Amino acid sequence: MSLESFAKDLEKIVGPENVLSNESDRHAYSYDSAVLEPKMPAMAVLPKRTEQLSDIIALCSRAGMPITVRGSGTNLSGGTVPDSEESVVIVTQALNNILEINEEDMYAVVEPGVVTAYFANEVAKRGLFYPPDPGSQAVSTLGGNIAENAGGLRGLKYGVTKDYLMGVEFFDASGALIKGGSRTVKCVTGYNLPGLICASEGTLGIISKAILKLIPPPKASRAMMAVFNGIDAAASSVAGIIAAHILPCTLEIMDSVTISLVEECEHIGLPKNAGAILLIELDGHPAQVAEDSETVESVLRKNGASEVAVAKNEQDKDKIWEARRKSLPALARSRPTIVLEDATVPRSKIPAMVSTIGEIAKKYDLLIGTFGHAGDGNLHPSILCDKRNSDEFRRVELAIDELFTRTVEMGGTLSGEHGIGTAKAKWLKMETNAATISFSKKLRRALDPKGLFNPTKITGTAI
Amino acid sequence: MSLESFAKDLEKIVGPENVLSNESDRHAYSYDSAVLEPKMPAMAVLPKRTEQLSDIIALCSRAGMPITVRGSGTNLSGGTVPDSEESVVIVTQALNNILEINEEDMYAVVEPGVVTAYFANEVAKRGLFYPPDPGSQAVSTLGGNIAENAGGLRGLKYGVTKDYLMGVEFFDASGALIKGGSRTVKCVTGYNLPGLICASEGTLGIISKAILKLIPPPKASRAMMAVFNGIDAAASSVAGIIAAHILPCTLEIMDSVTISLVEECEHIGLPKNAGAILLIELDGHPAQVAEDSETVESVLRKNGASEVAVAKNEQDKDKIWEARRKSLPALARSRPTIVLEDATVPRSKIPAMVSTIGEIAKKYDLLIGTFGHAGDGNLHPSILCDKRNSDEFRRVELAIDELFTRTVEMGGTLSGEHGIGTAKAKWLKMETNAATISFSKKLRRALDPKGLFNPTKITGTAI
Repeated sequence: MSLESFAKDLEKIVGPENVLSNESDRHAYSYDSAVLEPKMPAMAVLPKRTEQLSDIIALCSRAGMPITVRGSGTNLSGGTVPDSEESVVIVTQALNNILEINEEDMYAVVEPGVVTAYFANEVAKRGLFYPPDPGSQAVSTLGGNIAENAGGLRGLKYGVTKDYLMGVEFFDASGALIKGGSRTVKCVTGYNLPGLICASEGTLGIISKAILKLIPPPKASRAMMAVFNGIDAAASSVAGIIAAHILPCTLEIMDSVTISLVEECEHIGLPKNAGAILLIELDGHPAQVAEDSETVESVLRKNGASEVAVAKNEQDKDKIWEARRKSLPALARSRPTIVLEDATVPRSKIPAMVSTIGEIAKKYDLLIGTFGHAGDGNLHPSILCDKRNSDEFRRVELAIDELFTRTVEMGGTLSGEHGIGTAKAKWLKMETNAATISFSKKLRRALDPKGLFNPTKITGTAI
Repeated sequence: MSLESFAKDLEKIVGPENVLSNESDRHAYSYDSAVLEPKMPAMAVLPKRTEQLSDIIALCSRAGMPITVRGSGTNLSGGTVPDSEESVVIVTQALNNILEINEEDMYAVVEPGVVTAYFANEVAKRGLFYPPDPGSQAVSTLGGNIAENAGGLRGLKYGVTKDYLMGVEFFDASGALIKGGSRTVKCVTGYNLPGLICASEGTLGIISKAILKLIPPPKASRAMMAVFNGIDAAASSVAGIIAAHILPCTLEIMDSVTISLVEECEHIGLPKNAGAILLIELDGHPAQVAEDSETVESVLRKNGASEVAVAKNEQDKDKIWEARRKSLPALARSRPTIVLEDATVPRSKIPAMVSTIGEIAKKYDLLIGTFGHAGDGNLHPSILCDKRNSDEFRRVELAIDELFTRTVEMGGTLSGEHGIGTAKAKWLKMETNAATISFSKKLRRALDPKGLFNPTKITGTAI
């Protein structure tokens, strides 16, 4: 089948205006948010109804064209970078209907292209709460969140995307509609297909519908900021808070590099010379929040916090979180390239992880700004560099290699929330083993025998 | 390979005392807690160390002997009934080490044969909480809980087994050790193998190790019992409590049949003429428990509760829960056969489900006692009958068929927590579709190409 006739067939499914194949379009879908070489796809297709997904898959399968599904392209491990120049990128942004928000039974049914923050907001309007809040939630889609099992700031207390995925419908490699899970909190009817599709990074099926669990929102919350002279004291405070059996809804850290860059760019009044800052939010019943916040304050002071500022109103709170929100943009602006990592350790290992990052920065002569979800062991050491400087970038690669090795040695994992994609595929065996990769490939080959679903991702091609 | 030489080879792996093949042993492993025909296996084997699982699988694979893994045999859908007379039953009870309870990082590492309640108790001694509490927890094993994704009374607020499974190690059909998940709350390193193995009912691998999430225990709890003249009022109260956005840790119902049988057997002072009872436990911060319990009481009274008794001390609380604990034994004792179902509906459909059960009991002239987890839509209508009475049992089968059909029509699911096994396999297609079963079989065939892992369960043989 020629590319032209393939495009014509695709146009018959979605209309000519929804098949994009000129160079600038192909360029627009050639990369995502990971630091990887872009790859131009053959074309992009924008279905308007989920049923069209089936025909698109069947057509690609007949033509042997690989498929990469893309929500908003916020992926940080290359999951939405096309695999080859024959790739068809299916963009789900127009499949953005919230089909149902069931207040009585506390679930919602959504299409894959619904934007995370928009959804959370619609749910909040009905007095309910959808906790997963990946950093990119303002633009990321729920389908992408599911495919990557996205985490976020609230993972510590509320879990991650998989903890809210009650049911799923997706199209398999033959274009057939597969259904798993249900509208009930408990469901053991057949294999746990929602569990399987979650984190499968577009390699096992294309999500067309998801049933998401909602919960009652907390009645109160309190935000606070603690300033430390050194990052070790901040890291020990994190361990101390968890040891006191308090689960804050968020427990974030910013190191000195991050603090000074945020302050330089944004002038929001952060203590520029601080060694580290912790940003903490407690939520729950007002009485519990009050008690927990006393305990947390005392842990912070015992661990040497030089200042603890508790937000007195929404404005204060906003200001505290502004610092955190600005961390990634401020770091990203400081150098041409930012390599944002998410190696994750058991939370008590946060102090050791912080030292390790410091040692690695020194050893490879790199500037690393660290911020992230200290409370669940999921830091984001961000290497600030210039990819065009080949000497520097070689050191970046060595640093990442050492970071992952040390993470696994500490009982941690390569990726807390960004996925494997192509960016981390080469380290997968180090954390698991050869048999696990072979098992994964068998599973994958059985469900996608032509190897068309994101073939270079996770395990690399299984065919 | 003759059965004798196979047994000899098995003895070489585990020692002669751990291979059981005389008739009474084979009988002991021929059934579980489901109402199904027993099937005598060829033999049972009791490994003493998890590494032995690999050799046992490899040997069975060479000899073409099907494998059924069994913890304590409390399965309610036939998952631990051998598939054929060539079956080897692997009994995991001796693989019962708690390898680690990590208080700082709030997780535990266990072998599959650890008994659920024993584990929960050991965890509680360290000031932590493992919420999943299937009805059989006093004898059930964690490996079985994972294989079935067991639920329990606390599912409503705390979720089910899968919500606590952070990591898993299992042996695949070739005897290779597969690893998934980690000791961290967030992990997206490769496919979600813990999610896949959970609820796979012994068909994809044999669990050798699990990493389980623990949480801080609630600081306070309060139990109460509400008495109603009719079950409809109780069912409406359930919907009312959830609509008020209160998530009790347990919200259980007992219907009039159950109440009178419990009282007849046990004389614990239940109101014998009541139409229904709700048993409710709230937990959390003391202030929240106090507020929620006021709201719950008012919902109960508004919906016509004739009596609301709040436990004033541990003794009172124990007495309230005694009624619930005695429900299944009392029902089971009343007739020779009890068919315990777990069809589950979205919680707002509890009133409709209760009416449906009543209609079905009348239509098929059967005695159905209903109790269970009303708060998460997971009732246990229990048909009291005599399997030897073929006319009556035919009506039981018709009743079940109608119950499942109506459940799925209400947006519910065939099984909330008991699994599909062989007992519910024939209805699987009604809830999902042919493509989903074919997808599941492909997955299964790829991971177990000889079809030796519990081959008749869930989808039936994939080979």
